[in-house]
Amino acid sequence: MTFEYTLQKESTDTKARCGEFTTPHGKIETPVFMPVGTKATVKTMSPEELEEIDTQIILGNTYHLYLRPGHDLIEEAGGLHEFMNWNGPILTDSGGFQVFSLADRREISEEGVEFQSHLDGSKEFISPEKSIEIQMGLGADIIMAFDECPAHSAEKEYIKESLELTTRWAKRCQQAHTRDDQALFGIIQGGMHRDLREQSAEEITALDFPGYAIGGLSVGESKELMHEVLDYAPDLLPADKPRYLMGVGTPQDLFEGVMRGIDMFDCVFPTRIARNGAVFTSQGRITIRNATYKRQFTSLDPECDCYVCQNYTRAYIRHLIKRNEILGLRLTTYHNLYFLNDLMAKMRQAIFAEELFEFRENFYRKYGLEL
Amino acid sequence: MTFEYTLQKESTDTKARCGEFTTPHGKIETPVFMPVGTKATVKTMSPEELEEIDTQIILGNTYHLYLRPGHDLIEEAGGLHEFMNWNGPILTDSGGFQVFSLADRREISEEGVEFQSHLDGSKEFISPEKSIEIQMGLGADIIMAFDECPAHSAEKEYIKESLELTTRWAKRCQQAHTRDDQALFGIIQGGMHRDLREQSAEEITALDFPGYAIGGLSVGESKELMHEVLDYAPDLLPADKPRYLMGVGTPQDLFEGVMRGIDMFDCVFPTRIARNGAVFTSQGRITIRNATYKRQFTSLDPECDCYVCQNYTRAYIRHLIKRNEILGLRLTTYHNLYFLNDLMAKMRQAIFAEELFEFRENFYRKYGLEL
Repeated sequence: MTFEYTLQKESTDTKARCGEFTTPHGKIETPVFMPVGTKATVKTMSPEELEEIDTQIILGNTYHLYLRPGHDLIEEAGGLHEFMNWNGPILTDSGGFQVFSLADRREISEEGVEFQSHLDGSKEFISPEKSIEIQMGLGADIIMAFDECPAHSAEKEYIKESLELTTRWAKRCQQAHTRDDQALFGIIQGGMHRDLREQSAEEITALDFPGYAIGGLSVGESKELMHEVLDYAPDLLPADKPRYLMGVGTPQDLFEGVMRGIDMFDCVFPTRIARNGAVFTSQGRITIRNATYKRQFTSLDPECDCYVCQNYTRAYIRHLIKRNEILGLRLTTYHNLYFLNDLMAKMRQAIFAEELFEFRENFYRKYGLEL
Repeated sequence: MTFEYTLQKESTDTKARCGEFTTPHGKIETPVFMPVGTKATVKTMSPEELEEIDTQIILGNTYHLYLRPGHDLIEEAGGLHEFMNWNGPILTDSGGFQVFSLADRREISEEGVEFQSHLDGSKEFISPEKSIEIQMGLGADIIMAFDECPAHSAEKEYIKESLELTTRWAKRCQQAHTRDDQALFGIIQGGMHRDLREQSAEEITALDFPGYAIGGLSVGESKELMHEVLDYAPDLLPADKPRYLMGVGTPQDLFEGVMRGIDMFDCVFPTRIARNGAVFTSQGRITIRNATYKRQFTSLDPECDCYVCQNYTRAYIRHLIKRNEILGLRLTTYHNLYFLNDLMAKMRQAIFAEELFEFRENFYRKYGLEL
């Protein structure tokens, strides 16, 4: 079988776990952070650089690629891997989240979602079948079911109706999906309500997907609320399938997710803050534009082994970022992605060694986070 | 001696020549094109990428680096090589050209030039001594004398007075310059007047510099006028020293300069047009934004061996450029610089083989240029 998840290790004192997921473009060791390549490029990075920092899998956005350059063009190019020259695993989202973000410019029906393009206002329609058609054209290794992601503050009754619609759509996605070189993941919804999360998990897992995502988190709710849901939601999913928490990517969120049994994460956060000159370091996040760094001829993070930290100073990177030089954006992005890839690799080691608690404690203390 | 120019070959049917110039950071094989790294970075490129495409020497701009981040900061970092992590040869200009471009915001006296910074309007003063002080702080391998570059349309009398001022300034530069790990090049002026070019060359070469530049060309005059001056100006310079034509960098200008005895060139042209999506190909220049290329799944230039042409299609690069993705700017810049480096290497081969005429003819025919 092309897709196989192997659970390699379960931590005894946390719910963290290590695993391996096989795809047609290589194995993914979990827990894993997936950099986002919205428009068929992880902003500023070349594929070789992504490889160099041990990126295992990247994410592409169906909504953006559907509108431009179009999934038909990408299919003609031989698929997204070929188009962007990335030969590792790729995951595409369903487009659902982006479409629902359009707020007053979309209308949801049983059939699907009618919306106005954010680009030119043209009328577009995406149904579960259409989302799968697009994702089959793009040809990612892992694709996502088309779900509705309601606002976390929506009425409970609405969230219940919405999760039931998401279940019906999930079935239609499964029916529409015919490529056996792609794994279609299901998504559970249910907002911040435990009973609704349970209902959604029951309905979605009954459809037997090769992996599951927890949707509707990290959408504006408080950290406490997110952690509350994460305290039980992963347990509603089968242990022998990968679990993906969508839209999460700060060091703290990664730790908290991993300790609660999450295997996969994605977020634009590390790459977006990098382009604003903010970088992760073992001593906490720093904003390199700050005048403090003007004459600091040391690396971004003295404890980091990455190419950037081996070759460039804070003073130089600050100069580049202040002058809007592209090399500056490249260096901060490279470093931030290396930092997260490295962090996830170390978490894996710590899980195997049954030292995740101590590892987190040390990291938080130096990084300046409260436990 | 640290700096040595060896004339390796003189073409018999053109004035083209091959040579080698030794610097503390390595040898430069001439004729050579020097990519411009105005603000301590060749826009979009990493130092490793510059090396990968066999870049022999890069240029930094004294005016920009003096204003920001300041030559004192760069000196503190260990010099420009260390600051930007480029270990090959570097040339810095004198700042003169940028200062004179400020037009109505500068005033020239015997002492030097008072000007208002283009950034914040602050009053600044650069004299020959100051230019050399800055350039010694930056620590490039080759530095330039501070000259006046009058408008090509200026009165002949003004141009004569100006070139005489440039001579007096050249002497002061020589006196101020004390680093023996830097070669200070002289610059001849004289506008489009043969007698003034002769006078300037006589005065400047009498000072015995290790290399000479021809200034005041490619500043808005017609190609015919530039070629007219290039027909005799290089011959006014000693054959046993490198000759540098400042601000020139189209394929045609490189051919025409090389055939008239020029050894070194620099220009922002190839990198600037790259960021607008224009790329050199063996069939002529193309603008990749054009709709024609939307579904062309072939390389930028089918005859090119560079990393970009081996790995990416016109369709993908067009998509990136249209979406303002940084990787797009990286790929077009990389390709254009590779193209010029490769062109210069092939010109060298052709000079050695006494085939420069044929090589140019073939290139022009395919590129769509008239002979």
